[in-house]
Amino acid sequence: MSPFTGSAPRAERWEHLRLTLDDGVATVTLARPDKLNALTFGAYADLRDLLAELSREGRVRALVLAGEGRGFCSGGDVDEIIGATLAMDAAQLLDFNRMTGLVVRALRECPFPVVAAVHGVAAGAGAVLALAADFRVADPSARFAFLFTRVGLSGGDMGAAYLLPRVVGLGHATRLLMLGEPVRAPEAERIGLISELVDEGRADAQAAALARRLADGPALALARTKALLTAELDMPLAASVEMDAATQAHLMTGEDYAEFHAAFTEKRPPKWQGR
Amino acid sequence: MSPFTGSAPRAERWEHLRLTLDDGVATVTLARPDKLNALTFGAYADLRDLLAELSREGRVRALVLAGEGRGFCSGGDVDEIIGATLAMDAAQLLDFNRMTGLVVRALRECPFPVVAAVHGVAAGAGAVLALAADFRVADPSARFAFLFTRVGLSGGDMGAAYLLPRVVGLGHATRLLMLGEPVRAPEAERIGLISELVDEGRADAQAAALARRLADGPALALARTKALLTAELDMPLAASVEMDAATQAHLMTGEDYAEFHAAFTEKRPPKWQGR
Amino acid sequence: MSPFTGSAPRAERWEHLRLTLDDGVATVTLARPDKLNALTFGAYADLRDLLAELSREGRVRALVLAGEGRGFCSGGDVDEIIGATLAMDAAQLLDFNRMTGLVVRALRECPFPVVAAVHGVAAGAGAVLALAADFRVADPSARFAFLFTRVGLSGGDMGAAYLLPRVVGLGHATRLLMLGEPVRAPEAERIGLISELVDEGRADAQAAALARRLADGPALALARTKALLTAELDMPLAASVEMDAATQAHLMTGEDYAEFHAAFTEKRPPKWQGR
Repeated sequence: MSPFTGSAPRAERWEHLRLTLDDGVATVTLARPDKLNALTFGAYADLRDLLAELSREGRVRALVLAGEGRGFCSGGDVDEIIGATLAMDAAQLLDFNRMTGLVVRALRECPFPVVAAVHGVAAGAGAVLALAADFRVADPSARFAFLFTRVGLSGGDMGAAYLLPRVVGLGHATRLLMLGEPVRAPEAERIGLISELVDEGRADAQAAALARRLADGPALALARTKALLTAELDMPLAASVEMDAATQAHLMTGEDYAEFHAAFTEKRPPKWQGR
Repeated sequence: MSPFTGSAPRAERWEHLRLTLDDGVATVTLARPDKLNALTFGAYADLRDLLAELSREGRVRALVLAGEGRGFCSGGDVDEIIGATLAMDAAQLLDFNRMTGLVVRALRECPFPVVAAVHGVAAGAGAVLALAADFRVADPSARFAFLFTRVGLSGGDMGAAYLLPRVVGLGHATRLLMLGEPVRAPEAERIGLISELVDEGRADAQAAALARRLADGPALALARTKALLTAELDMPLAASVEMDAATQAHLMTGEDYAEFHAAFTEKRPPKWQGR
Repeated sequence: MSPFTGSAPRAERWEHLRLTLDDGVATVTLARPDKLNALTFGAYADLRDLLAELSREGRVRALVLAGEGRGFCSGGDVDEIIGATLAMDAAQLLDFNRMTGLVVRALRECPFPVVAAVHGVAAGAGAVLALAADFRVADPSARFAFLFTRVGLSGGDMGAAYLLPRVVGLGHATRLLMLGEPVRAPEAERIGLISELVDEGRADAQAAALARRLADGPALALARTKALLTAELDMPLAASVEMDAATQAHLMTGEDYAEFHAAFTEKRPPKWQGR
């Protein structure tokens, strides 16, 4: 536990998602399979608050985001979200949309890698959650659909118009966000939207294995890698090179760097401490 | 027509290109087929002014940019542009190059998607016009050549050194802009330069069909998607997420969003109004 | 020689790398084949200082970066660098890491294109040197490994977390920098990390041929193309378009642009002067 944990209490129970913790690996499962894990206000709020809690506590070194049942996540619930927002005033609409954006920022800014385990549909906000992860481990049933324009909204939702061009390039991103058509696994792999394509039905298991490997690795170095990837998308070259230098100078005083050298010298695998 | 149209008169006739308007779809055709649609000073000026007129009038919801004859556009005319610029002074040279850049900015900033219909050659400035479009619908005869260095100029022309790395990545962009070699349709599709590869001779028809679909869709949502894609290339993640939230909060008060929900509830296709 | 060369003396001999100069083409060879060209403090310092010298002197129009023996470069030497840094204080660690970053900045900012000739391993800092080049000419034996996390450090080293997402996209870059796994030639070509894949054993010869072609071409236009590609990754669209306009207005007063027009008119190949 981080010494920088204050008075904020931990949530006793996350009502809108399922959380398991296993020696540094958190697994967050969207568990509303009868609705293809359609997101509700509560699910967004829980994702926002859970990521904040995990980020400040420092117990987690890798996180898996998965969906129970036939697919990953079908996006915002048509009744509970679209219907409800039709009755909201301007301030409420902004609050709602800022909350969903905060979930994406939390996924990009949390101090541990996030692995999305994608099978079946990842649509709308579900596609953006997967997009905001560091890794997308997907099986051949996976299909991504940024279908915001299909409901009369902007394809730029929760940072999608920022993130997608940086993952697949501006041409593909424009097509995907404007038309909202499904991208099936072969195309998603070809354009760089899938990090690792695995056998049918193996997305959860392979995502868990990757998260375990990351959590057992040099976790501080991995967290810094993620932070630099996130920050340097928004930074010029010269400043990025400076930031890398400061980061490496810091990590070179760490235990894992010394451990690598000792292990290499002794011809044994390193025992990472994550610090 | 937008209420924000002032005293500026409409052009009676566009002398350097062909324009048709059909219920929200503008088709702009480079129509100098005996010269492979080589661009002249007048053609650049007309593109700049036409895009400004269409942007302020608000009658157009999608635009097709096409070329008549054997190819899309062979770029600046060797005699009428290269020859003429050799006699210009420093201020005139800057004026000319700022004008061509304004055409690219207009293509990226106009409030409607632009579909380039590419067959045959798209060379020099012609390649950049296609690059600045939102969609490149191309047939197998298409070949792109950013041949600026072949005439002793910088590969960064009209924003190409900004746009191309964001479409195909820095490695491919460096190769294409430095060497000026033609990129044929299979490679162009592979690296993400073509949005939709269609059958031989079908680029114009398929581009028109896509523009029709876009114009008949939720046009305000599509225009906002384009605006966010353009803006967020230049914005950090946190600000992009804020901009998305403000945009969606706005669109959620719009008719198309309510229409989607009504149509979904009534199990019928939505009738988009574009507002 | 540039008139803007002052009192700084030229290095009599580069002890930590091999340099040949041939009519505008510099070839820099990492020549420590018994150690797979592992980098030492001296090699980094020489790369930094050589690139500064070549940049200010103006004799070089293209540069090849190659590795002697079985591979391109295995990265920082485990004993001479990793071992040595374990004994350094905070200021020395920062100095070292700033020096390596300056090499990457010099590769991106030098006024001539850089062609990396890659065969066999390009690992760690060796992978970043190749990444910072303008062209990566590689043969099928090439394999890239950004293995910084394997030694307990950040994958963002020497600007890698800035450059790699801009070359291969954020998804692939995250995977490569976090996991440090080798990327073999077919995948490297597919994701855009290789500029030109050549036959086995032909990387050095083909890189030399490309550098010769660049050095004999319109070298000022090529240098400006490189400068714009580097700068415009960090610039918004509108400013990029202005920068392109100013650059072209300048080059349109140059000898090579006039020579192109004369050669075209006389139906002969242009004789480039590089100015």
